[in-house]
Amino acid sequence: MAAEANSNSDNLTLDKVREALIRQEDTIVFRLIQRANFPVNSPTYDEKFASFSGSLLQFVVKETEALQSKVGRYENPEEQPFFPENLPPSLVPPQANPPVLHPAAASININEKIWDFYFNQLLPLFAVPGDDGNYASTASSDLDCLQAISRRIHYGYYVAEVKFKDDPQDYEPAIRAQDREGLMKLLTFEAVEEMVKKRVGRRQRFSDRTCAWLIMEMENTRLIRLWFLGSMENG
Amino acid sequence: MAAEANSNSDNLTLDKVREALIRQEDTIVFRLIQRANFPVNSPTYDEKFASFSGSLLQFVVKETEALQSKVGRYENPEEQPFFPENLPPSLVPPQANPPVLHPAAASININEKIWDFYFNQLLPLFAVPGDDGNYASTASSDLDCLQAISRRIHYGYYVAEVKFKDDPQDYEPAIRAQDREGLMKLLTFEAVEEMVKKRVGRRQRFSDRTCAWLIMEMENTRLIRLWFLGSMENG
Repeated sequence: MAAEANSNSDNLTLDKVREALIRQEDTIVFRLIQRANFPVNSPTYDEKFASFSGSLLQFVVKETEALQSKVGRYENPEEQPFFPENLPPSLVPPQANPPVLHPAAASININEKIWDFYFNQLLPLFAVPGDDGNYASTASSDLDCLQAISRRIHYGYYVAEVKFKDDPQDYEPAIRAQDREGLMKLLTFEAVEEMVKKRVGRRQRFSDRTCAWLIMEMENTRLIRLWFLGSMENG
Repeated sequence: MAAEANSNSDNLTLDKVREALIRQEDTIVFRLIQRANFPVNSPTYDEKFASFSGSLLQFVVKETEALQSKVGRYENPEEQPFFPENLPPSLVPPQANPPVLHPAAASININEKIWDFYFNQLLPLFAVPGDDGNYASTASSDLDCLQAISRRIHYGYYVAEVKFKDDPQDYEPAIRAQDREGLMKLLTFEAVEEMVKKRVGRRQRFSDRTCAWLIMEMENTRLIRLWFLGSMENG
Protein backbone atom coordinates (compact mmCIF):
# COMPACT_ATOMS: atom_id res chain seq x y z
CA MET A 1 0.00 0.00 0.00
CA ALA A 2 0.94 3.61 -0.39
CA ALA A 3 2.37 4.08 3.07
CA GLU A 4 1.97 0.53 4.34
CA ALA A 5 4.67 -2.11 4.28
CA ASN A 6 3.38 -5.35 2.77
CA SER A 7 4.43 -8.33 0.72
CA ASN A 8 5.24 -6.07 -2.23
CA SER A 9 7.42 -3.59 -0.41
CA ASP A 10 11.05 -3.64 -1.36
CA ASN A 11 11.90 -1.53 1.66
CA LEU A 12 10.36 -3.23 4.66
CA THR A 13 11.53 -1.28 7.71
CA LEU A 14 10.48 -1.42 11.33
CA ASP A 15 9.15 2.13 11.09
CA LYS A 16 6.91 1.29 8.14
CA VAL A 17 5.70 -1.90 9.80
CA ARG A 18 4.92 0.06 12.96
CA GLU A 19 2.94 2.65 11.03
CA ALA A 20 0.99 -0.15 9.35
CA LEU A 21 0.26 -1.76 12.71
CA ILE A 22 -1.12 1.47 14.16
CA ARG A 23 -3.43 1.88 11.18
CA GLN A 24 -4.53 -1.75 11.40
CA GLU A 25 -5.37 -1.38 15.08
CA ASP A 26 -7.34 1.80 14.38
CA THR A 27 -9.28 -0.25 11.85
CA ILE A 28 -10.03 -2.98 14.40
CA VAL A 29 -11.27 -0.45 16.95
CA PHE A 30 -13.42 1.35 14.42
CA ARG A 31 -14.96 -1.85 13.10
CA LEU A 32 -15.74 -3.11 16.61
CA ILE A 33 -17.48 0.21 17.27
CA GLN A 34 -19.54 -0.32 14.13
CA ARG A 35 -20.49 -3.85 15.17
CA ALA A 36 -21.49 -2.48 18.59
CA ASN A 37 -24.19 -0.43 16.83
CA PHE A 38 -26.14 -3.67 16.42
CA PRO A 39 -27.42 -5.95 19.17
CA VAL A 40 -26.43 -9.65 19.22
CA ASN A 41 -28.97 -10.50 16.46
CA SER A 42 -28.79 -14.23 17.03
CA PRO A 43 -30.68 -15.29 13.83
CA THR A 44 -27.49 -14.21 11.98
CA TYR A 45 -25.82 -17.27 13.52
CA ASP A 46 -28.76 -19.68 13.33
CA GLU A 47 -28.15 -22.50 10.83
CA LYS A 48 -31.89 -22.95 10.30
CA PHE A 49 -32.81 -19.31 9.71
CA ALA A 50 -32.50 -18.96 5.92
CA SER A 51 -33.00 -21.15 2.87
CA PHE A 52 -29.32 -21.78 2.21
CA SER A 53 -27.00 -24.21 3.91
CA GLY A 54 -25.35 -22.97 7.12
CA SER A 55 -25.95 -19.70 8.95
CA LEU A 56 -26.36 -16.32 7.32
CA LEU A 57 -22.95 -15.39 8.74
CA GLN A 58 -21.24 -18.48 7.27
CA PHE A 59 -22.90 -17.80 3.91
CA VAL A 60 -21.70 -14.18 3.87
CA VAL A 61 -18.14 -15.06 4.91
CA LYS A 62 -17.77 -18.00 2.47
CA GLU A 63 -19.31 -16.19 -0.50
CA THR A 64 -17.37 -12.98 0.14
CA GLU A 65 -14.11 -14.89 0.42
CA ALA A 66 -14.82 -16.72 -2.85
CA LEU A 67 -15.44 -13.41 -4.58
CA GLN A 68 -12.35 -11.80 -3.06
CA SER A 69 -10.25 -14.81 -4.01
CA LYS A 70 -11.24 -14.31 -7.67
CA VAL A 71 -9.85 -10.78 -7.53
CA GLY A 72 -6.58 -11.86 -5.93
CA ARG A 73 -7.03 -10.94 -2.26
CA TYR A 74 -5.28 -14.06 -1.01
CA GLU A 75 -2.22 -13.53 -3.18
CA ASN A 76 -1.08 -11.27 -0.32
CA PRO A 77 0.23 -13.45 2.52
CA GLU A 78 -1.14 -11.12 5.22
CA GLU A 79 -4.65 -11.87 3.94
CA GLN A 80 -5.82 -15.29 5.09
CA PRO A 81 -9.28 -16.79 4.42
CA PHE A 82 -11.53 -18.22 7.15
CA PHE A 83 -12.79 -20.95 4.79
CA PRO A 84 -9.72 -21.85 2.73
CA GLU A 85 -11.28 -25.01 1.26
CA ASN A 86 -12.33 -24.87 -2.39
CA LEU A 87 -11.56 -21.20 -2.92
CA PRO A 88 -11.71 -20.29 -6.62
CA PRO A 89 -8.42 -19.23 -8.24
CA SER A 90 -7.53 -15.58 -8.85
CA LEU A 91 -8.68 -14.20 -12.22
CA VAL A 92 -6.30 -11.24 -12.14
CA PRO A 93 -2.67 -11.23 -13.33
CA PRO A 94 -0.18 -12.23 -10.58
CA GLN A 95 1.91 -9.52 -8.97
CA ALA A 96 5.43 -9.02 -10.23
CA ASN A 97 7.23 -8.34 -6.92
CA PRO A 98 8.86 -11.22 -5.06
CA PRO A 99 7.42 -12.04 -1.61
CA VAL A 100 9.16 -10.65 1.45
CA LEU A 101 8.19 -13.34 3.94
CA HIS A 102 9.78 -16.72 4.47
CA PRO A 103 7.39 -19.25 2.81
CA ALA A 104 6.81 -20.98 6.17
CA ALA A 105 5.45 -17.72 7.61
CA ALA A 106 3.33 -16.96 4.55
CA SER A 107 1.54 -20.31 4.84
CA ILE A 108 0.44 -19.86 8.47
CA ASN A 109 -3.31 -19.43 8.96
CA ILE A 110 -4.63 -19.18 12.52
CA ASN A 111 -8.10 -17.98 11.54
CA GLU A 112 -9.83 -20.88 13.26
CA LYS A 113 -8.54 -19.55 16.59
CA ILE A 114 -9.46 -15.99 15.64
CA TRP A 115 -13.01 -17.09 14.72
CA ASP A 116 -13.42 -18.86 18.02
CA PHE A 117 -11.92 -15.94 19.96
CA TYR A 118 -14.14 -13.37 18.20
CA PHE A 119 -17.46 -15.18 18.55
CA ASN A 120 -16.98 -16.86 21.90
CA GLN A 121 -14.95 -14.26 23.81
CA LEU A 122 -14.92 -10.83 22.19
CA LEU A 123 -18.45 -10.41 20.76
CA PRO A 124 -20.32 -11.43 23.95
CA LEU A 125 -18.39 -8.72 25.81
CA PHE A 126 -19.73 -5.79 23.80
CA ALA A 127 -22.81 -6.77 21.76
CA VAL A 128 -25.95 -5.93 23.75
CA PRO A 129 -28.71 -8.58 23.89
CA GLY A 130 -31.49 -8.05 21.37
CA ASP A 131 -32.70 -8.40 17.81
CA ASP A 132 -33.30 -5.46 15.45
CA GLY A 133 -33.65 -7.50 12.26
CA ASN A 134 -30.51 -6.14 10.56
CA TYR A 135 -28.93 -9.55 10.00
CA ALA A 136 -27.26 -8.81 6.66
CA SER A 137 -25.51 -5.74 8.05
CA THR A 138 -24.60 -7.62 11.22
CA ALA A 139 -22.93 -10.39 9.20
CA SER A 140 -21.06 -7.85 7.05
CA SER A 141 -19.93 -6.08 10.17
CA ASP A 142 -18.74 -9.33 11.77
CA LEU A 143 -16.77 -10.13 8.62
CA ASP A 144 -15.20 -6.66 8.68
CA CYS A 145 -14.07 -7.25 12.28
CA LEU A 146 -12.80 -10.77 11.58
CA GLN A 147 -10.80 -9.66 8.55
CA ALA A 148 -9.29 -6.68 10.37
CA ILE A 149 -8.23 -8.82 13.35
CA SER A 150 -6.91 -11.56 11.07
CA ARG A 151 -4.89 -9.13 8.98
CA ARG A 152 -3.39 -7.55 12.11
CA ILE A 153 -2.48 -10.89 13.62
CA HIS A 154 -1.02 -12.40 10.46
CA TYR A 155 0.84 -9.16 9.85
CA GLY A 156 2.74 -10.01 13.01
CA TYR A 157 5.00 -12.16 10.88
CA TYR A 158 6.33 -9.04 9.20
CA VAL A 159 7.24 -7.65 12.60
CA ALA A 160 9.13 -10.84 13.40
CA GLU A 161 10.78 -10.85 9.95
CA VAL A 162 11.92 -7.23 10.25
CA LYS A 163 13.20 -7.67 13.79
CA PHE A 164 15.08 -10.79 12.74
CA LYS A 165 16.66 -8.97 9.78
CA ASP A 166 17.66 -6.03 12.00
CA ASP A 167 19.38 -8.23 14.61
CA PRO A 168 19.91 -11.76 13.28
CA GLN A 169 22.69 -12.34 15.85
CA ASP A 170 20.17 -11.92 18.69
CA TYR A 171 17.60 -14.29 17.22
CA GLU A 172 19.64 -17.04 15.56
CA PRO A 173 20.83 -18.78 18.74
CA ALA A 174 17.28 -18.90 20.12
CA ILE A 175 15.89 -20.17 16.78
CA ARG A 176 18.54 -22.90 16.45
CA ALA A 177 17.96 -23.98 20.02
CA GLN A 178 14.16 -23.85 19.45
CA ASP A 179 14.09 -21.72 22.60
CA ARG A 180 10.44 -20.59 22.59
CA GLU A 181 10.73 -18.66 25.80
CA GLY A 182 13.82 -16.78 24.69
CA LEU A 183 12.21 -15.87 21.35
CA MET A 184 9.03 -14.74 23.07
CA LYS A 185 11.07 -12.43 25.27
CA LEU A 186 12.98 -10.95 22.32
CA LEU A 187 9.76 -10.32 20.36
CA THR A 188 7.23 -9.35 22.98
CA PHE A 189 9.04 -6.75 25.02
CA GLU A 190 8.91 -4.19 22.27
CA ALA A 191 5.37 -5.12 21.28
CA VAL A 192 4.11 -4.35 24.76
CA GLU A 193 5.93 -1.03 24.85
CA GLU A 194 4.42 -0.06 21.48
CA MET A 195 0.98 -1.06 22.66
CA VAL A 196 1.13 1.37 25.57
CA LYS A 197 2.15 4.24 23.29
CA LYS A 198 -0.66 3.42 20.87
CA ARG A 199 -3.26 3.22 23.60
CA VAL A 200 -2.48 6.74 24.69
CA GLY A 201 -2.71 8.09 21.15
CA ARG A 202 -5.87 6.21 20.33
CA ARG A 203 -7.65 7.20 23.50
CA GLN A 204 -7.42 10.85 22.43
CA ARG A 205 -8.83 10.16 19.01
CA PHE A 206 -11.79 8.10 20.14
CA SER A 207 -12.33 9.81 23.47
CA ASP A 208 -16.12 9.64 23.28
CA ARG A 209 -16.22 5.94 22.54
CA THR A 210 -15.47 4.76 26.02
CA CYS A 211 -17.42 1.55 25.71
CA ALA A 212 -15.48 0.21 22.73
CA TRP A 213 -12.32 1.40 24.41
CA LEU A 214 -12.87 -0.65 27.47
CA ILE A 215 -13.22 -3.73 25.32
CA MET A 216 -9.95 -3.09 23.58
CA GLU A 217 -8.19 -2.35 26.83
CA MET A 218 -9.38 -5.67 28.16
CA GLU A 219 -8.65 -7.61 25.01
CA ASN A 220 -5.41 -6.17 23.74
CA THR A 221 -3.33 -8.38 25.94
CA ARG A 222 -5.26 -11.43 24.94
CA LEU A 223 -5.03 -10.60 21.20
CA ILE A 224 -1.32 -10.11 21.45
CA ARG A 225 -0.92 -13.32 23.38
CA LEU A 226 -2.98 -15.19 20.80
CA TRP A 227 -0.86 -13.75 18.03
CA PHE A 228 2.44 -14.89 19.50
CA LEU A 229 0.99 -18.18 20.59
CA GLY A 230 -0.15 -18.78 17.01
CA SER A 231 3.21 -17.80 15.55
CA MET A 232 5.07 -20.09 17.89
CA GLU A 233 2.77 -23.07 17.52
CA ASN A 234 2.63 -23.01 13.73
CA GLY A 235 5.94 -21.40 12.72
CA MET B 1 -29.96 -0.93 14.85
CA ALA B 2 -29.30 -0.80 18.53
CA ALA B 3 -29.03 2.94 18.78
CA GLU B 4 -29.68 3.84 15.15
CA ALA B 5 -33.04 4.90 13.77
CA ASN B 6 -33.92 2.95 10.65
CA SER B 7 -36.80 1.49 8.72
CA ASN B 8 -37.61 -0.85 11.61
CA SER B 9 -37.68 1.70 14.39
CA ASP B 10 -41.08 2.38 15.85
CA ASN B 11 -39.78 5.51 17.53
CA LEU B 12 -38.10 7.57 14.83
CA THR B 13 -37.14 10.88 16.47
CA LEU B 14 -34.98 13.73 15.29
CA ASP B 15 -32.47 13.00 18.07
CA LYS B 16 -32.08 9.37 17.01
CA VAL B 17 -31.79 10.34 13.37
CA ARG B 18 -29.13 12.91 14.28
CA GLU B 19 -27.15 10.34 16.25
CA ALA B 20 -27.33 7.99 13.28
CA LEU B 21 -26.13 10.72 10.92
CA ILE B 22 -23.11 11.48 13.10
CA ARG B 23 -22.13 7.82 13.12
CA GLN B 24 -22.65 7.52 9.39
CA GLU B 25 -20.43 10.53 8.76
CA ASP B 26 -17.74 9.11 11.03
CA THR B 27 -17.93 5.98 8.89
CA ILE B 28 -17.48 7.96 5.67
CA VAL B 29 -14.46 9.79 7.06
CA PHE B 30 -12.88 6.60 8.35
CA ARG B 31 -13.41 4.74 5.08
CA LEU B 32 -11.98 7.58 3.03
CA ILE B 33 -8.91 7.51 5.28
CA GLN B 34 -8.61 3.78 4.58
CA ARG B 35 -8.90 4.30 0.82
CA ALA B 36 -6.21 7.00 1.09
CA ASN B 37 -3.79 4.28 2.26
CA PHE B 38 -3.68 3.08 -1.34
CA PRO B 39 -2.53 5.04 -4.38
CA VAL B 40 -4.85 5.47 -7.39
CA ASN B 41 -4.14 1.90 -8.62
CA SER B 42 -5.62 2.46 -12.05
CA PRO B 43 -5.70 -1.25 -13.14
CA THR B 44 -8.59 -1.59 -10.64
CA TYR B 45 -10.67 0.48 -13.07
CA ASP B 46 -9.29 -0.94 -16.34
CA GLU B 47 -11.90 -2.98 -18.21
CA LYS B 48 -9.17 -5.02 -19.94
CA PHE B 49 -7.13 -5.92 -16.85
CA ALA B 50 -8.68 -9.23 -15.75
CA SER B 51 -10.30 -12.22 -17.39
CA PHE B 52 -13.87 -11.29 -16.45
CA SER B 53 -16.17 -8.81 -18.12
CA GLY B 54 -15.82 -5.20 -16.94
CA SER B 55 -13.29 -3.76 -14.53
CA LEU B 56 -12.15 -5.39 -11.30
CA LEU B 57 -14.06 -2.66 -9.43
CA GLN B 58 -17.31 -3.31 -11.34
CA PHE B 59 -16.91 -7.05 -10.74
CA VAL B 60 -16.42 -6.56 -6.99
CA VAL B 61 -19.34 -4.13 -6.64
CA LYS B 62 -21.79 -6.23 -8.75
CA GLU B 63 -20.86 -9.55 -7.14
CA THR B 64 -20.90 -8.14 -3.60
CA GLU B 65 -24.29 -6.54 -4.17
CA ALA B 66 -25.70 -9.82 -5.54
CA LEU B 67 -24.45 -11.62 -2.43
CA GLN B 68 -25.77 -8.95 -0.09
CA SER B 69 -29.13 -8.96 -1.87
CA LYS B 70 -29.45 -12.71 -1.13
CA VAL B 71 -29.09 -11.97 2.58
CA GLY B 72 -31.65 -9.16 2.52
CA ARG B 73 -29.52 -5.99 2.54
CA TYR B 74 -31.79 -4.17 0.12
CA GLU B 75 -34.91 -4.87 2.15
CA ASN B 76 -33.85 -1.78 4.13
CA PRO B 77 -34.77 1.33 2.12
CA GLU B 78 -31.67 3.24 3.25
CA GLU B 79 -29.54 0.62 1.48
CA GLN B 80 -29.58 1.16 -2.27
CA PRO B 81 -27.58 -0.90 -4.80
CA PHE B 82 -25.28 0.62 -7.43
CA PHE B 83 -26.27 -2.05 -9.96
CA PRO B 84 -29.96 -2.67 -9.28
CA GLU B 85 -30.51 -4.68 -12.48
CA ASN B 86 -30.96 -8.45 -12.09
CA LEU B 87 -30.29 -8.57 -8.36
CA PRO B 88 -31.16 -12.00 -6.92
CA PRO B 89 -34.06 -12.11 -4.43
CA SER B 90 -33.51 -12.27 -0.68
CA LEU B 91 -33.24 -15.79 0.76
CA VAL B 92 -33.96 -14.71 4.34
CA PRO B 93 -37.42 -14.27 5.92
CA PRO B 94 -38.86 -10.76 5.45
CA GLN B 95 -38.85 -8.38 8.41
CA ALA B 96 -42.03 -8.05 10.41
CA ASN B 97 -42.00 -4.30 11.12
CA PRO B 98 -43.85 -1.94 8.78
CA PRO B 99 -41.71 0.57 6.84
CA VAL B 100 -41.40 4.12 8.18
CA LEU B 101 -40.78 5.94 4.92
CA HIS B 102 -43.31 7.09 2.36
CA PRO B 103 -43.05 4.55 -0.53
CA ALA B 104 -41.99 7.32 -2.94
CA ALA B 105 -38.97 8.11 -0.75
CA ALA B 106 -38.06 4.43 -0.29
CA SER B 107 -37.86 3.93 -4.06
CA ILE B 108 -35.40 6.77 -4.72
CA ASN B 109 -31.91 5.68 -5.81
CA ILE B 110 -29.38 8.36 -6.72
CA ASN B 111 -26.38 6.06 -6.73
CA GLU B 112 -25.50 6.87 -10.34
CA LYS B 113 -24.75 10.43 -9.23
CA ILE B 114 -22.88 9.21 -6.16
CA TRP B 115 -20.73 6.91 -8.33
CA ASP B 116 -19.88 9.72 -10.71
CA PHE B 117 -19.20 12.11 -7.81
CA TYR B 118 -16.96 9.62 -5.99
CA PHE B 119 -14.81 8.54 -8.94
CA ASN B 120 -14.67 11.79 -10.89
CA GLN B 121 -14.55 14.39 -8.12
CA LEU B 122 -13.75 12.94 -4.70
CA LEU B 123 -11.19 10.17 -5.37
CA PRO B 124 -8.88 12.29 -7.57
CA LEU B 125 -8.65 14.81 -4.69
CA PHE B 126 -7.09 12.43 -2.19
CA ALA B 127 -5.69 9.30 -3.87
CA VAL B 128 -2.01 9.83 -4.63
CA PRO B 129 -0.77 8.78 -8.10
CA GLY B 130 0.82 5.34 -8.23
CA ASP B 131 0.34 1.59 -8.38
CA ASP B 132 1.15 -0.78 -5.49
CA GLY B 133 -0.60 -3.85 -6.90
CA ASN B 134 -3.28 -4.08 -4.18
CA TYR B 135 -6.20 -3.96 -6.60
CA ALA B 136 -8.55 -6.30 -4.70
CA SER B 137 -8.19 -4.27 -1.49
CA THR B 138 -8.54 -1.03 -3.43
CA ALA B 139 -11.84 -2.19 -4.97
CA SER B 140 -13.14 -3.35 -1.56
CA SER B 141 -12.16 -0.02 -0.09
CA ASP B 142 -13.90 1.91 -2.90
CA LEU B 143 -17.04 -0.16 -2.33
CA ASP B 144 -16.88 0.59 1.42
CA CYS B 145 -16.70 4.33 0.66
CA LEU B 146 -19.48 4.19 -1.95
CA GLN B 147 -21.82 2.28 0.36
CA ALA B 148 -21.15 4.58 3.31
CA ILE B 149 -21.79 7.71 1.22
CA SER B 150 -24.87 6.16 -0.38
CA ARG B 151 -26.32 5.13 2.96
CA ARG B 152 -25.74 8.61 4.40
CA ILE B 153 -27.31 10.33 1.43
CA HIS B 154 -30.33 8.04 1.18
CA TYR B 155 -30.76 8.28 4.94
CA GLY B 156 -31.49 11.96 4.29
CA TYR B 157 -35.07 10.91 3.56
CA TYR B 158 -35.50 9.97 7.20
CA VAL B 159 -34.40 13.45 8.18
CA ALA B 160 -36.98 14.94 5.83
CA GLU B 161 -39.63 12.50 7.06
CA VAL B 162 -38.99 13.28 10.73
CA LYS B 163 -38.89 17.02 10.16
CA PHE B 164 -42.12 16.85 8.20
CA LYS B 165 -43.81 14.85 10.96
CA ASP B 166 -42.60 17.32 13.60
CA ASP B 167 -43.93 20.38 11.75
CA PRO B 168 -46.33 19.38 8.98
CA GLN B 169 -47.89 22.84 9.00
CA ASP B 170 -44.54 24.39 7.93
CA TYR B 171 -43.96 21.94 5.10
CA GLU B 172 -47.40 21.29 3.64
CA PRO B 173 -47.90 24.65 1.93
CA ALA B 174 -44.47 24.40 0.27
CA ILE B 175 -45.10 20.79 -0.81
CA ARG B 176 -48.54 21.59 -2.27
CA ALA B 177 -47.15 24.60 -4.11
CA GLN B 178 -44.17 22.47 -5.30
CA ASP B 179 -42.03 25.32 -3.95
CA ARG B 180 -38.54 23.81 -4.24
CA GLU B 181 -36.76 26.86 -2.96
CA GLY B 182 -39.00 27.14 0.11
CA LEU B 183 -38.54 23.45 0.92
CA MET B 184 -34.79 23.69 0.49
CA LYS B 185 -34.72 26.55 2.97
CA LEU B 186 -36.80 24.68 5.53
CA LEU B 187 -34.64 21.56 5.26
CA THR B 188 -31.13 22.91 4.75
CA PHE B 189 -30.84 25.57 7.43
CA GLU B 190 -30.72 23.04 10.23
CA ALA B 191 -28.55 20.64 8.24
CA VAL B 192 -25.87 23.30 7.83
CA GLU B 193 -25.98 24.16 11.52
CA GLU B 194 -25.63 20.49 12.46
CA MET B 195 -22.73 20.09 10.07
CA VAL B 196 -20.75 22.82 11.80
CA LYS B 197 -21.30 21.20 15.20
CA LYS B 198 -20.26 17.82 13.87
CA ARG B 199 -17.15 19.19 12.21
CA VAL B 200 -15.89 20.54 15.51
CA GLY B 201 -16.54 17.26 17.31
CA ARG B 202 -15.04 15.16 14.59
CA ARG B 203 -11.93 17.27 14.26
CA GLN B 204 -11.02 16.43 17.85
CA ARG B 205 -11.47 12.72 17.30
CA PHE B 206 -9.43 12.52 14.11
CA SER B 207 -7.01 15.33 14.89
CA ASP B 208 -4.01 13.60 13.35
CA ARG B 209 -5.69 12.86 10.07
CA THR B 210 -5.46 16.33 8.65
CA CYS B 211 -5.28 15.18 5.07
CA ALA B 212 -8.56 13.28 5.10
CA TRP B 213 -10.06 16.16 7.02
CA LEU B 214 -9.26 18.66 4.37
CA ILE B 215 -11.06 16.50 1.86
CA MET B 216 -14.17 16.35 3.98
CA GLU B 217 -14.06 20.05 4.67
CA MET B 218 -13.96 20.69 0.96
CA GLU B 219 -16.54 18.13 0.06
CA ASN B 220 -19.12 18.36 2.83
CA THR B 221 -20.90 21.23 1.17
CA ARG B 222 -20.94 19.45 -2.14
CA LEU B 223 -22.20 16.17 -0.62
CA ILE B 224 -24.99 17.96 1.16
CA ARG B 225 -25.90 19.84 -1.98
CA LEU B 226 -25.93 16.62 -3.98
CA TRP B 227 -28.12 15.02 -1.38
CA PHE B 228 -30.79 17.71 -1.46
CA LEU B 229 -30.52 18.02 -5.20
CA GLY B 230 -31.19 14.30 -5.52
CA SER B 231 -34.10 14.42 -3.10
CA MET B 232 -35.70 17.28 -4.94
CA GLU B 233 -35.17 15.97 -8.44
CA ASN B 234 -36.44 12.48 -7.77
CA GLY B 235 -38.85 13.01 -4.90
